[in-house]
Amino acid sequence: MDDSDWVKSVMEEHRNKINIQLADILKGFKSEAQSIHPSAVEMVEEVERFTLGGGKRIRPILMCMGYESIAGTFDEQIVRASCLWELVQSFLLIHDDVMDRSKLRRWNDTTYVKFQKQYAGRVREPEHFGQSMAILAGDLCSQLALLPLLQTSFSAERKIQSLALCMDIVATVSYGQVLDIWIPEAEEVHEEDILRVGQYKTARYTIEGPLLSGAILAGASQSILNAFSRYSIPLGQAFQLKDDIMGLFGTPEEIGKPVDSDLKEGKKTLLILKATERASESQAAALRRILGDPNLTEKDLEYVKEIVVSTGAREYSERRMGELVLEAKDALQNAQIRPDAKRFLLGAADYMVLRKT
Amino acid sequence: MDDSDWVKSVMEEHRNKINIQLADILKGFKSEAQSIHPSAVEMVEEVERFTLGGGKRIRPILMCMGYESIAGTFDEQIVRASCLWELVQSFLLIHDDVMDRSKLRRWNDTTYVKFQKQYAGRVREPEHFGQSMAILAGDLCSQLALLPLLQTSFSAERKIQSLALCMDIVATVSYGQVLDIWIPEAEEVHEEDILRVGQYKTARYTIEGPLLSGAILAGASQSILNAFSRYSIPLGQAFQLKDDIMGLFGTPEEIGKPVDSDLKEGKKTLLILKATERASESQAAALRRILGDPNLTEKDLEYVKEIVVSTGAREYSERRMGELVLEAKDALQNAQIRPDAKRFLLGAADYMVLRKT
Repeated sequence: MDDSDWVKSVMEEHRNKINIQLADILKGFKSEAQSIHPSAVEMVEEVERFTLGGGKRIRPILMCMGYESIAGTFDEQIVRASCLWELVQSFLLIHDDVMDRSKLRRWNDTTYVKFQKQYAGRVREPEHFGQSMAILAGDLCSQLALLPLLQTSFSAERKIQSLALCMDIVATVSYGQVLDIWIPEAEEVHEEDILRVGQYKTARYTIEGPLLSGAILAGASQSILNAFSRYSIPLGQAFQLKDDIMGLFGTPEEIGKPVDSDLKEGKKTLLILKATERASESQAAALRRILGDPNLTEKDLEYVKEIVVSTGAREYSERRMGELVLEAKDALQNAQIRPDAKRFLLGAADYMVLRKT
Repeated sequence: MDDSDWVKSVMEEHRNKINIQLADILKGFKSEAQSIHPSAVEMVEEVERFTLGGGKRIRPILMCMGYESIAGTFDEQIVRASCLWELVQSFLLIHDDVMDRSKLRRWNDTTYVKFQKQYAGRVREPEHFGQSMAILAGDLCSQLALLPLLQTSFSAERKIQSLALCMDIVATVSYGQVLDIWIPEAEEVHEEDILRVGQYKTARYTIEGPLLSGAILAGASQSILNAFSRYSIPLGQAFQLKDDIMGLFGTPEEIGKPVDSDLKEGKKTLLILKATERASESQAAALRRILGDPNLTEKDLEYVKEIVVSTGAREYSERRMGELVLEAKDALQNAQIRPDAKRFLLGAADYMVLRKT
């Protein structure tokens, strides 16, 4: 088995255990909601549908791995705690879909669309009602997310430290989101602004937060925490670049959404920024016209792809991605962690940016 | 000084200390946001404007009082921790205003309206942009809210226990909110449904959560926590009834919003439910027509008031309110807490439902 297969099998093993605990946690929330009101149960069931309906569980896997890198084993307690990242993810995505007015997520109705359809004909304004229910569903998730960690048997000191980190990281995601909705409206956007979104929305949230929150529960030293941070930031930025490239050049099956959705949203990715910088006058005019146009055609999409390739913007992004992955792996070389965990994290860095989906 | 003046002066003393800490906490968040991006600072400044712009600080005062009832003193640590309830309150209200599409809060622009106005002409859809920014501002508040408590010097065990309670209570507020938007659309509503909203949105959140979260930090026994719960639930329900009565019969100055806004929203209060039950056929038809009509007239408002009085619905609500206050005060009679704290809580029960604003 080569490293990439081994990484995949380790992820699979963790994913299965995480899915079992996640389902159990949601079942617990549902039985509490039953003592309140049928409308509360309906809300938890939607959170359940959304959370169990898909997702690669990368964040909980990394939290478990942060723990294992010190403790050497992983048990039910850490798996249970790690589910917090999936509930946080549901909270963020459910709200995201309201803000972006996305109708589909993993080829299913988004939460607001689901409630909108379900209550059509029964309420005065189904769309607004659906949005309100989705805001509440997200809020509920945000409050339930950390309860499983609080209930684990880790020491109170470590739980407090881990919690403080999680809350801090999730707060910075909000800042990243603000930047993300601010950027498409801004007159001038720099490469730094875009990497910053990657840093807050992806690097800190998807990699650093999960890894550190698990390592803290195992009592990691400050020097290990620092090494994990130096691994996480470039890897997260690489991951974001990968996402942007896939968002334009992937297939709908690979990315779980239409391939023109980033363009229609007017998302200013590094890919688009570089292409704009290097474009001829007529190419730049086309980019300005197409970017953010909700009615762009198949031909427009193909033209943008062509510009991104011919200006070398795709190559530039791919090269940056490769450099960032090397930087990430370098940070772990001297970290005093379990060899298996190190092998996994080095392999995962390659896997996460080479992955097709 | 009679008891009601004494209660007011104790509240005032606490409120001043809370306001100082709250401003300091927000200043800290702002300086962190400065290291991120100007758009992050803008977001924290809106949270600051909203949070410091008004509010009676009842929840933090009760958290301090829960602590003092055991510890006998109150210090900077508990005052700082207690600010969590104001940040949670901002989180909930900012989202509420999006869901209710309220334009005014304490006679100032709500958060979504503020962003909508500020970005008009600069973004494609100012209203949707304002709503998105408000969703993010609320989310940010929800994540920042508990950080000050985590950073206090209380023991990790007590902080974990207090935190778990806070998160659990705030989650039940979401359930109360679901009920609250569900009720106006429901075909059949019972007194029990309405009292349940009062229980989750007001009693547990406004009284029980704050009192218990403070008492836990002081190491309160289970029997004291139980007495506080038995005090909180009826008092919160009484408080809700008071709110509903004021919402119809108060002046705009007293309630901080137009007196017809509950009616326009179609809010099914106990007052309205009882009036509907006891109304003549023509009165019932009028109530059905007026309730939830965003264009109702001054005459409609006066007619609803007349029905609520003539059917005895107002008297019924006021009597229930009085009974609930007595029940609340009764629960504290044998509680082993500091005499001054007991005197305050008994006086506060009267004060909170007799208050004009």
